[in-house]
Amino acid sequence: MKKHIAVYPGSFDPITYGHLDIICRGLEVFDTLIVAVARNSSKKSLFTIEERVEMIRKAVGDNPRLKVDTFEGLLVDYVIRQGARVILRGLRAVSDFEYEFQIAQMNHTVQKEVETLFMMTSVPYGYLSSSIVKEMALLKGPIDSFVPPAVQEALEKKFGKK
Amino acid sequence: MKKHIAVYPGSFDPITYGHLDIICRGLEVFDTLIVAVARNSSKKSLFTIEERVEMIRKAVGDNPRLKVDTFEGLLVDYVIRQGARVILRGLRAVSDFEYEFQIAQMNHTVQKEVETLFMMTSVPYGYLSSSIVKEMALLKGPIDSFVPPAVQEALEKKFGKK
Amino acid sequence: MKKHIAVYPGSFDPITYGHLDIICRGLEVFDTLIVAVARNSSKKSLFTIEERVEMIRKAVGDNPRLKVDTFEGLLVDYVIRQGARVILRGLRAVSDFEYEFQIAQMNHTVQKEVETLFMMTSVPYGYLSSSIVKEMALLKGPIDSFVPPAVQEALEKKFGKK
Amino acid sequence: MKKHIAVYPGSFDPITYGHLDIICRGLEVFDTLIVAVARNSSKKSLFTIEERVEMIRKAVGDNPRLKVDTFEGLLVDYVIRQGARVILRGLRAVSDFEYEFQIAQMNHTVQKEVETLFMMTSVPYGYLSSSIVKEMALLKGPIDSFVPPAVQEALEKKFGKK
Amino acid sequence: MKKHIAVYPGSFDPITYGHLDIICRGLEVFDTLIVAVARNSSKKSLFTIEERVEMIRKAVGDNPRLKVDTFEGLLVDYVIRQGARVILRGLRAVSDFEYEFQIAQMNHTVQKEVETLFMMTSVPYGYLSSSIVKEMALLKGPIDSFVPPAVQEALEKKFGKK
Amino acid sequence: MKKHIAVYPGSFDPITYGHLDIICRGLEVFDTLIVAVARNSSKKSLFTIEERVEMIRKAVGDNPRLKVDTFEGLLVDYVIRQGARVILRGLRAVSDFEYEFQIAQMNHTVQKEVETLFMMTSVPYGYLSSSIVKEMALLKGPIDSFVPPAVQEALEKKFGKK
Repeated sequence: MKKHIAVYPGSFDPITYGHLDIICRGLEVFDTLIVAVARNSSKKSLFTIEERVEMIRKAVGDNPRLKVDTFEGLLVDYVIRQGARVILRGLRAVSDFEYEFQIAQMNHTVQKEVETLFMMTSVPYGYLSSSIVKEMALLKGPIDSFVPPAVQEALEKKFGKK
Repeated sequence: MKKHIAVYPGSFDPITYGHLDIICRGLEVFDTLIVAVARNSSKKSLFTIEERVEMIRKAVGDNPRLKVDTFEGLLVDYVIRQGARVILRGLRAVSDFEYEFQIAQMNHTVQKEVETLFMMTSVPYGYLSSSIVKEMALLKGPIDSFVPPAVQEALEKKFGKK
Repeated sequence: MKKHIAVYPGSFDPITYGHLDIICRGLEVFDTLIVAVARNSSKKSLFTIEERVEMIRKAVGDNPRLKVDTFEGLLVDYVIRQGARVILRGLRAVSDFEYEFQIAQMNHTVQKEVETLFMMTSVPYGYLSSSIVKEMALLKGPIDSFVPPAVQEALEKKFGKK
Repeated sequence: MKKHIAVYPGSFDPITYGHLDIICRGLEVFDTLIVAVARNSSKKSLFTIEERVEMIRKAVGDNPRLKVDTFEGLLVDYVIRQGARVILRGLRAVSDFEYEFQIAQMNHTVQKEVETLFMMTSVPYGYLSSSIVKEMALLKGPIDSFVPPAVQEALEKKFGKK
Repeated sequence: MKKHIAVYPGSFDPITYGHLDIICRGLEVFDTLIVAVARNSSKKSLFTIEERVEMIRKAVGDNPRLKVDTFEGLLVDYVIRQGARVILRGLRAVSDFEYEFQIAQMNHTVQKEVETLFMMTSVPYGYLSSSIVKEMALLKGPIDSFVPPAVQEALEKKFGKK
Repeated sequence: MKKHIAVYPGSFDPITYGHLDIICRGLEVFDTLIVAVARNSSKKSLFTIEERVEMIRKAVGDNPRLKVDTFEGLLVDYVIRQGARVILRGLRAVSDFEYEFQIAQMNHTVQKEVETLFMMTSVPYGYLSSSIVKEMALLKGPIDSFVPPAVQEALEKKFGKK
């Protein structure tokens, strides 16, 4: 029986309770889960990659089956290098679906051995995204129901507190 | 390390190359895959459940890691009884997405221990469905690129040949 | 200042916690809310219109600002006869959106004085529908988190209990 | 220079101003347009195929570049038999899009020489469909802004007048 | 009977006939309507907030039940400060729907007392947006059927006239 | 019989096999096809308009019925100047659909004589876009199944080779 390793990639800028929900449920399904923060995303990020990794580490705690890592270059190459065959992604809404579909098809064309598996985001996090949390923080709205305490602090440091 | 068993449920009325694509790719990801034909679907079926199982068996051949079965009642109960924790479903399009989302959320509410994982249908089968194949067969159109030979025969027996 | 009356129409076959959520929130926004059960829907219903009205009454309790009624014929005519100008509808998902859009546009073409206002269904009920509850009940799955006790009883009477 | 012939297929049960809009605009783009009423649709129709053809004829009047016809069996075969290479279809909304996409891909797989071209329905008819007109007629609502006079008469004969 | 006040927020950069349609119909439904121009939107605007307010004022004329205002910070806080409980938003298409759904859910999480009500944009304005009007103006295309005269002038001043 | 000319507009930054598929199929349907590269798009482009035209020319080869051109200003004005009445566009997914719908309606409002006709992108190119190819090239992933050799070279010159 082979070991089942899945890579959960993203920019996590910053991590939200929606991401954490996928991580927890992913750990139920796979033997090992690698949370992989993209280093070369073309999107401008609010937090540095070190800050983003740090916030994820604080949020997930210690778990021998969970690894937090960063990657550069093509995701499918990274997945193969990790000895994994599965990319895990969360799906919230129709707009997610089309983008994820496009990416998954491209990845499968480029690397047949890697599969993308999707989980529907849990009901209470279906409307949550890093961008909307950042906008809320910018307007000094309450964010404690959307992100873990360490992220809340980091966001309040950036944008000020009410 | 636990054994990874996934259940791939459906009505398979009849099985198409789109379903077979999910089955093959599912076998790459999981240790055991159970193709589970729904016995009590409220939808009227063209083929009896025995015919549907028979056509799947012919199409998938012998594989110790693949099981073809039928189930009645609540899917999540069946999944638990099989010692599985994962439901596998294919996603083709936006309309699929919303229906599958609804079902996955209901199943998760009813049985927290079962997760639904989704795979995007491979590009060439993205537009394929059992219903559209049946309609094509009814109009005596060519169906050999959509279903395996045994299914083609069965459909031509029902609807006549051109 | 005029009195704000809204009509919340539907088949309510049967009423779910999703409908009740719209009713409660509608009462916060309008002075009077009329829950209007459609008598001549072309859809076949599981419950008679009397049973559906009865279940709504039990679920909403007594509230002088809430009225439960039935209607026949064109909805916009009924709305005008009630001295109302607003139809209230819940929106769950993209598929809802397109259907509701079509109906709202038709209604506005036919009767300019009536407006349709939409509320997004609350997060926990976003995946809920009368049909999916009925299917769950048919499979003898647990339905207590989806419908009020009186509806649960009525469904178990129809389909049997686990 | 070849003659450009397009086939505009449908069930036209009954024809609406939305269909007529596509027909008029199609005549601007193609040399000849064939309105082709499907004889073997699996959908139950309100009007017989003769009634449907008759209502289309009355609505479009005489035009040497326009032909009203019926067809049985596979649409792409009919298109080829007519010496045409183009199927014309109207698109109203996202739900249309996915269904039409599926059909167009199937047709292209079966018959490479036939292309489907789509027109967006004109703004005022974007929400119009034969089914919604029939439901409106059943409820004795006003339908004169949705269908031509001959269709209005035929619908009032079926369902009665207000 | 309480006074029904609704806030219609947006960037209105610039106001179009689509916005005006929602304003007119909103005035039929609510006792008072506040058109609230967002001051701290992260989107870059073509017009200053003063210019945007000025153009709205010219377009709506004098109406004691209509107020044009600007706001900073969290929308729901502004709504509460105005003594209102309702946010009014227009819905045009599926992409609108998903974004608005996300925002409405966030707002409801943050402030339970405020409800968002949606109106479907009237048929002729379903495809209209401030961005597409700006692009049309940049290309010196005709814009008189999309925006009121004062806005047309302002846009021609920015981009030149044909 | 009139000559059927269609304009296929876009930014083509750069041309992909998806665009080429539409061009080939467009040539089957129309007498003349004009590939029209937009000069004044507000989007920032990776390649200059000369480079983009050059890559298209290399990809399509010599065909007396195919013209590669650039245009400035309003597309519908350009179409009329070319003696054409038809704009041809490819549709891949739901998100495309809504944007294209909006543009087609605007164009039809501004210029009644020009029609937009849509083709569904062929199955293998349904997930392809210039942006996703550029991102793949930036990450030095394989792009030979997405763009013609000349484009591959140009992209590797910009971003480096693996």
